[in-house]
Amino acid sequence: MSKHATFGAPSSIAEANQARIARLLHQCGILSRAYIAKALGLTAPAISKLVARMIESGLVTETGDLPGARHRRSIGLALKTAAYRVIGVKFARSRVDWGVFDLAGKPLQQGALPLMSDRDIPGTVQAVTVQVNQVLAADPSIIAVGMAVPGPYLRHEGRIALVTSMQGWRGVNFLNEFSQAFPVPTFIEQDARAGALAQNLFAPDHRTPRLTGPNGPAARPTAATNLAYYLVGEGVGLGVIESGRLINGERGGATELGHVSIDVNGRPCECGNRGCLERYCSAVAIHETMCAPEYSGSFPQVGGLDHAQACQLLFQRAAQGDEPASELLERVCTCVGYGCVSIINAFNPSRIVIGDLVAGAGRPLLDTVRRIVSERALPELRQSTRICLSSLPADATLLGAAAVAVDRFLQAPTAYASLSKQRAGKSGHKPVIRPAKESQP
Amino acid sequence: MSKHATFGAPSSIAEANQARIARLLHQCGILSRAYIAKALGLTAPAISKLVARMIESGLVTETGDLPGARHRRSIGLALKTAAYRVIGVKFARSRVDWGVFDLAGKPLQQGALPLMSDRDIPGTVQAVTVQVNQVLAADPSIIAVGMAVPGPYLRHEGRIALVTSMQGWRGVNFLNEFSQAFPVPTFIEQDARAGALAQNLFAPDHRTPRLTGPNGPAARPTAATNLAYYLVGEGVGLGVIESGRLINGERGGATELGHVSIDVNGRPCECGNRGCLERYCSAVAIHETMCAPEYSGSFPQVGGLDHAQACQLLFQRAAQGDEPASELLERVCTCVGYGCVSIINAFNPSRIVIGDLVAGAGRPLLDTVRRIVSERALPELRQSTRICLSSLPADATLLGAAAVAVDRFLQAPTAYASLSKQRAGKSGHKPVIRPAKESQP
Repeated sequence: MSKHATFGAPSSIAEANQARIARLLHQCGILSRAYIAKALGLTAPAISKLVARMIESGLVTETGDLPGARHRRSIGLALKTAAYRVIGVKFARSRVDWGVFDLAGKPLQQGALPLMSDRDIPGTVQAVTVQVNQVLAADPSIIAVGMAVPGPYLRHEGRIALVTSMQGWRGVNFLNEFSQAFPVPTFIEQDARAGALAQNLFAPDHRTPRLTGPNGPAARPTAATNLAYYLVGEGVGLGVIESGRLINGERGGATELGHVSIDVNGRPCECGNRGCLERYCSAVAIHETMCAPEYSGSFPQVGGLDHAQACQLLFQRAAQGDEPASELLERVCTCVGYGCVSIINAFNPSRIVIGDLVAGAGRPLLDTVRRIVSERALPELRQSTRICLSSLPADATLLGAAAVAVDRFLQAPTAYASLSKQRAGKSGHKPVIRPAKESQP
Repeated sequence: MSKHATFGAPSSIAEANQARIARLLHQCGILSRAYIAKALGLTAPAISKLVARMIESGLVTETGDLPGARHRRSIGLALKTAAYRVIGVKFARSRVDWGVFDLAGKPLQQGALPLMSDRDIPGTVQAVTVQVNQVLAADPSIIAVGMAVPGPYLRHEGRIALVTSMQGWRGVNFLNEFSQAFPVPTFIEQDARAGALAQNLFAPDHRTPRLTGPNGPAARPTAATNLAYYLVGEGVGLGVIESGRLINGERGGATELGHVSIDVNGRPCECGNRGCLERYCSAVAIHETMCAPEYSGSFPQVGGLDHAQACQLLFQRAAQGDEPASELLERVCTCVGYGCVSIINAFNPSRIVIGDLVAGAGRPLLDTVRRIVSERALPELRQSTRICLSSLPADATLLGAAAVAVDRFLQAPTAYASLSKQRAGKSGHKPVIRPAKESQP
C-alpha cells in the first residue's frame, strides 16, 4: 500500500462536494455562491458551509463584488490556483524535461536533463530523482508530482511496453522508481493522455465564459468533454477524453494511434506491425527520411542534428519555398491528416488538438490536415470536429505531466490543502521560486 | 419531452441501490443477502430492507437454502429474469429481424420482415411498427423495446450517417419514427455497440462464478469490463465497453472500425475514405469479390444469391478444400485479423468477440486472426487479449438489440416493475407467448 494512498479519492460526501466546487471554479474562474449552488444542484446553505470550509483551509478566496448582480450583493469566489504548485516531468525518448506550474498551468520554473543514449538511462532515473527532490525541498507549496511517459505505457505494471528508437526505457519500472521517491504523491501517465488532460484543464478556448451577469454563464459547464490530443513528436501518440473520462483500455494500451496501421503492407515497425502511422510522420521518421539517399543533396548536414533540429530545418526550408522540403513536408502533413481521419472514425471527438514537435510546422500542417479530413471523413462527423494546434503556454506534454497532478488535486483538494500546510510547517519557510525567465535548463 | 422520460435513471438512492442489486444478481445468478451486502458495501439491515421491497415488487425471488453456509441459514436470491421480457429489433442493410427475449437473453419468439430494397424502406418502417405493436399487445410482460441499427448512428439526432450499399436508411429518423411509437420505452443503439452489451450481459463465459460457499464467488464481480464486439457482417462495426462504459464519442460516431483505413491508397469507400476495412472483409465486399471476373469460374451462380448465402457458399467450398475459395477466405480472414490488430492498438480490450455473418467461417477465421495478431500486435497487449467467436444463443446483434433494453431495465428496475404491473392490469390477462421453436418468421 502506498504511503500516499489517501490522496486517491475524497473520504466523505463533504469532501467530494468540495472537490466538485474546486473543479467548477478551476474550469470557470470566478463564480458566485448562488451560481455554484445552481450548477451543482446543492442548496445555498450547503454551499455556504462548504465554501466557508474551503476558505478556512486556504483553497478558495473571495474576490469582491461581482458586476451585474441586481438586488443583492454577489461576492465572487475563486480557487487559489497560485497557492499550490506541482512539478511536471516529461520523459521523451532522448531527453527529460521538468517544470514547476501552479494549478492554472502557469509555468514558474523549467529545466531539462541533458540528452542521453540508451546506456544513460539508469543514471537519468537517478538524476531525475535528485532534481525533483531538490525542487521539492525548496518549495513547500508543491504538493504533487506528475510524470508523462511515452506509450504504450502499462499503467498497472508501471512499464513502457515499447519505445521505438529507444528500447532502454523498457527496462525502467516507473512505479517502482518514482511512486515512493518523493515526499508528495506522484502520478504517472502516458504522454498523450497527459497532454489531453492539459488541453482540458488549461486550454483557454475551451473554458466556459466567465460570469457576466446575475444568471451566470450562458452555457452551464456540464457538457461532457470529447477531446483528442494528438501528439506528433518523437513518437506519435493519442490521448482521448471520451464523455469526460480518459480512455485507458485493459492495461493502459488504448489509443496507441502511432501503431495503428495506415498501410498493412507498408513500412515495418519495431512493434511488429507494418505501416504504423508513426513510421510516416513522427520526428524520428522525418529525420530518417531527411537522412535517406533520396534527400542527400537537400539536407547535407542533417545527420549531425537531433530530431527536433531536423524538423525545424525542414519547416524553415519549406517556408523559404525550397522544393524538396515543401514536397517532403506535404507528405508528412498528409500522413498526419490520415491519422486525424482515423481519430474521427475511431473516437469521434468534438476537438482534435495537434501538438509536439511536428505541430511546429504550423499553418501548412493545419491546412493539409483539414484538406485530408474534408476529403476522407464523413461530413456528419468532420463538421462537428474542430481541429487546431496546441496553444498552451508550454510544451503540451510537459504541461500534461503537470495536468496529471493538478487533476488529482482537483479530485481531493482538501487532502492536498492539508499536505501543503504540513509541508509549510515542516520546512518552516515561505516558498521561494524563481520566475520562469530566470530558470536554467 | 418523451413520455418515457422517467425510465432513464432511478429517482432515489433506494432505487439506485435496488438497481445495483438487480445488476449484481443478473451478473452472478444466485447470491445471499450477506454476499450482496459485502459486494455493494452496504449494511446487512439495509440490504434486507431493499431486498424485501424487491421481493414485494416482483423483481427478486428467494430460491431456498444455499449450500456451503456453515453456521446459519443462507437463503439464495435471484432476479426474476423470466418474468420480464423485451423485444429486440435488428435493422440490417437489407432485412429487419425481431425477437422476444427474457432478461437473461433467452429467445422466446423470433421473426423477420421480408428482404427489401432501398425503395421499400418507408413501408418497412411502417411494418416494423405494426409488428412490434402486435407482439406488445399480446404480451404485457414485455416492458421495453431495444433497436440496433447500422453505424455510424448519430445518437442524439436519431439518424444513420451512412449505410454503405443501402443509402435509403439515411432518410429515416429512428428517434422520430420509434421513440413514441409503442406503449413501452424504446431505445436505439448502433448495432455493434448493442452486440457488445449482449456479450457483456448474456455471454456465459464472462460471468462471475456462482456462489459456491459462504464467502461467495472467489472473484468479486467489480472488475471493470474492457470488451470489444467486432461485428463482421453486411458492414463491419465495433462496439467497445471501456472500464464498464460504452464508447460513443461526441455524436455517436466512435468505434467505426469499418471506416478506419488499413491502406490509405486502397479501395475507395462510399464514406469518402480509401482502404476502409469494410471494403475488404464485410459480407458485401466478399460477395462483390466472388462476383468479380477473377472468380467467375469458381462461383458461377453467386450473382443470384444474397450476401449471407454467398458467404455460406464460400465457407462451404473452402471447407471442402476448393483452392480459389480457400485462398479468398484466407485473404478475408487476414483482413479481419488486421482489424483485430487495430482494435488492440486503439482500444486495448481484454476480450474481442467476433460475430455476425463472417464469423460463420468458424475455426479457420479464428486461426488466421490469431496468427495475424501474434505477428503484428505488441506481445504485452495481445497476451492479455482473448479473441473468440460469439457463442450467444441467437444472432449477436438481435440479442444486442434486446440487451439495449435489458441494460435500461437494470438501470431502473423498480420503474419497469411498476410498468409491468400496469400493463398486466390494463390487458387483464396473463402473458401468452409461443415458445421460440413454434414461431413463424
